[in-house]
Amino acid sequence: MTDSTMQVYFDHNATTAVDETVMAAMLPYFQENYGNASSSHSYGLRAHRAIEHAREQVASAVGAMPSQVIFTSGGSEANNLFIRGVADSIKPATLLVSAIEHPCVRRPAQALAWKNSQKWQLDELAVRETGGVDADAAITALSKIRPAMVSMMLANNETGVIQPVAAVAEAAAALGIWMHTDAIQAFAKMPVNFAELGVHAMTLSSHKIYGPKGAAALVIDQRLPIKPLIYGGGHENGLRSGTENVPAIVGFGVACELAVSRMAKLAAHTRSLRDQMENGLHEMGAIIFGGEVQRLPNTCYFALPDIEGDTLVVQLDKAGFAVASGAACSSATPGKSQVLEAMQVDPMLARCAVRISFGIANTSQQVTDFLSAIKKIADQLKHLNVMFGA
Amino acid sequence: MTDSTMQVYFDHNATTAVDETVMAAMLPYFQENYGNASSSHSYGLRAHRAIEHAREQVASAVGAMPSQVIFTSGGSEANNLFIRGVADSIKPATLLVSAIEHPCVRRPAQALAWKNSQKWQLDELAVRETGGVDADAAITALSKIRPAMVSMMLANNETGVIQPVAAVAEAAAALGIWMHTDAIQAFAKMPVNFAELGVHAMTLSSHKIYGPKGAAALVIDQRLPIKPLIYGGGHENGLRSGTENVPAIVGFGVACELAVSRMAKLAAHTRSLRDQMENGLHEMGAIIFGGEVQRLPNTCYFALPDIEGDTLVVQLDKAGFAVASGAACSSATPGKSQVLEAMQVDPMLARCAVRISFGIANTSQQVTDFLSAIKKIADQLKHLNVMFGA
Repeated sequence: MTDSTMQVYFDHNATTAVDETVMAAMLPYFQENYGNASSSHSYGLRAHRAIEHAREQVASAVGAMPSQVIFTSGGSEANNLFIRGVADSIKPATLLVSAIEHPCVRRPAQALAWKNSQKWQLDELAVRETGGVDADAAITALSKIRPAMVSMMLANNETGVIQPVAAVAEAAAALGIWMHTDAIQAFAKMPVNFAELGVHAMTLSSHKIYGPKGAAALVIDQRLPIKPLIYGGGHENGLRSGTENVPAIVGFGVACELAVSRMAKLAAHTRSLRDQMENGLHEMGAIIFGGEVQRLPNTCYFALPDIEGDTLVVQLDKAGFAVASGAACSSATPGKSQVLEAMQVDPMLARCAVRISFGIANTSQQVTDFLSAIKKIADQLKHLNVMFGA
Repeated sequence: MTDSTMQVYFDHNATTAVDETVMAAMLPYFQENYGNASSSHSYGLRAHRAIEHAREQVASAVGAMPSQVIFTSGGSEANNLFIRGVADSIKPATLLVSAIEHPCVRRPAQALAWKNSQKWQLDELAVRETGGVDADAAITALSKIRPAMVSMMLANNETGVIQPVAAVAEAAAALGIWMHTDAIQAFAKMPVNFAELGVHAMTLSSHKIYGPKGAAALVIDQRLPIKPLIYGGGHENGLRSGTENVPAIVGFGVACELAVSRMAKLAAHTRSLRDQMENGLHEMGAIIFGGEVQRLPNTCYFALPDIEGDTLVVQLDKAGFAVASGAACSSATPGKSQVLEAMQVDPMLARCAVRISFGIANTSQQVTDFLSAIKKIADQLKHLNVMFGA
């Protein structure tokens, strides 16, 4: 089944469709108000004003000041900007990241440690089997290891498990450690407030919150020592050069407003779908990862023992349901889930992992249909397993 | 005058409006085929196929193979990727850039030399007063300085002057020097062929060629040693991580096709407008920068002595004409033109510089109207100068 109008989309943690109001706001900036925001004529001024308005929208959505928002091309760039930008600005020391960070935090951290083997040391914060970092253990680690900087995501992209960022940030601040949180998955699904979290830097992304691809932000405490990743014309207060992607930034701003205004509604809606889904999956003998602790309301990460996740995803796709196996965002380099490994999930069970992530347009009927489809597929696959002794 | 429908846009070297066919190609990827290209379901596959099709279009437009194209978020990122990505991969040595490079080449080069003062040395290739690098002098410099890498743009963004890239690249290749060209301004305005230029890396950008902002490419010789600027999920063959901006990349691909198919027509059209403009400006006593050598057909960079460029741009904007003073792309940090300084233009005259860059939708009538408007404004400003003795 390849007709998009027929497919049910259950993969909102990977990306979302651009909302109608967001699209309407973006459209005038492609062919009408298409100026370069750095130009001093009217076309440029209109583009510039649109960006500054979006900056206010983004800042306001997370309780920050517009001057704290650095626009980037995406969440990966923003996370790299934190890691490399701070590393370039301070004395080499230890860098601490949680074991369940997205590759766009882990890999630049590894690259930093690898390239400067005599300088930067990389250390990892373990997570419990339930999928969360233990706040007390993290705080103990901070005072023992005394890293120069630490990065811990607000909610995990695979399990949806919410991490104790505020508690760890308080300890980090007291110890003079620069603390970053990747809030990409949390934002729009739970309250996210920069000041209340107490971090020095936070990443947000547009395309996970019904905004367009191509815009994101690193929100920073202005005391944070940071250098650009991309040098040039000096845009974004000298911290991110390059002609601004005006339509995408405008769309991101509107998506942030939308995120705040409908957060409660979206949470309640997706939570009810998720409960319905997990009740049905439990009846089939599914195991839910992260199910025992506080999670994002829209995320359901499960395994049907003995049914390989990749196979299930392909069969479900054929049946008209788009779901993810493992972490979709790093599927460019497929492999096992680093998150489930960090949670010490049995590798055989981890291979069966499938992620469903609900969004605003999903319905209870879709869940009902999905449950009957997956039952049928699971029965067929089990039958094949029995036949071929797999 | 702020109504965009009334303004004449003469600033195509800063950015362009998205072409109608490009827009039509992009639209389905915002709300319909909105999948993450890394997802393994149908939404993801459609996005992935769209990107690979665009990669073929970009490659084919410049005589390269699709596997040589690394998509980035913009030209600044692509230029930084070359500088920092190669520097991270080879033994520190000398880096040579021409004196008229865009800030997104010069500044990362400066940052590299500054941060690694014991390691990377930055050297500059001078230009002649006519605005071009002297090929013989450049080749001599290469064998004398023996840099590890060199970056020289194909055509300058301010003057439009075309640089002797192929000749210098041949010498660089013979000496084992990694050579990059920023072809952002040249592309779509003159023939650009990666293989014929003989460089190891070349930057292209979408929003200068009637494509959307948010997409660009670094085209590379696959022997080039290079590391990512943005680490993460391993997209773009491991060289540029981050969820691909599918609509922008799709638009970029179509814009590349369009660029090739109408290049001759666009060149002839803009050259005729430029000739008409420069005849009129000459009559007013204007000086044309780079006018004695081979230039892009659409670019007219001039000065009316004693009339300050910034003032003229503001007055022309009020009269309904969008033109640039100095280099629009670095106007985020306004100041004098580094290009005119490198050409040893008298600083008093350089302050009078104004750039007109024509595009497909401009007309001869617009040039006629512009010439009568600028004459009126110049007369008024001269009158003020006389009155206030400025």
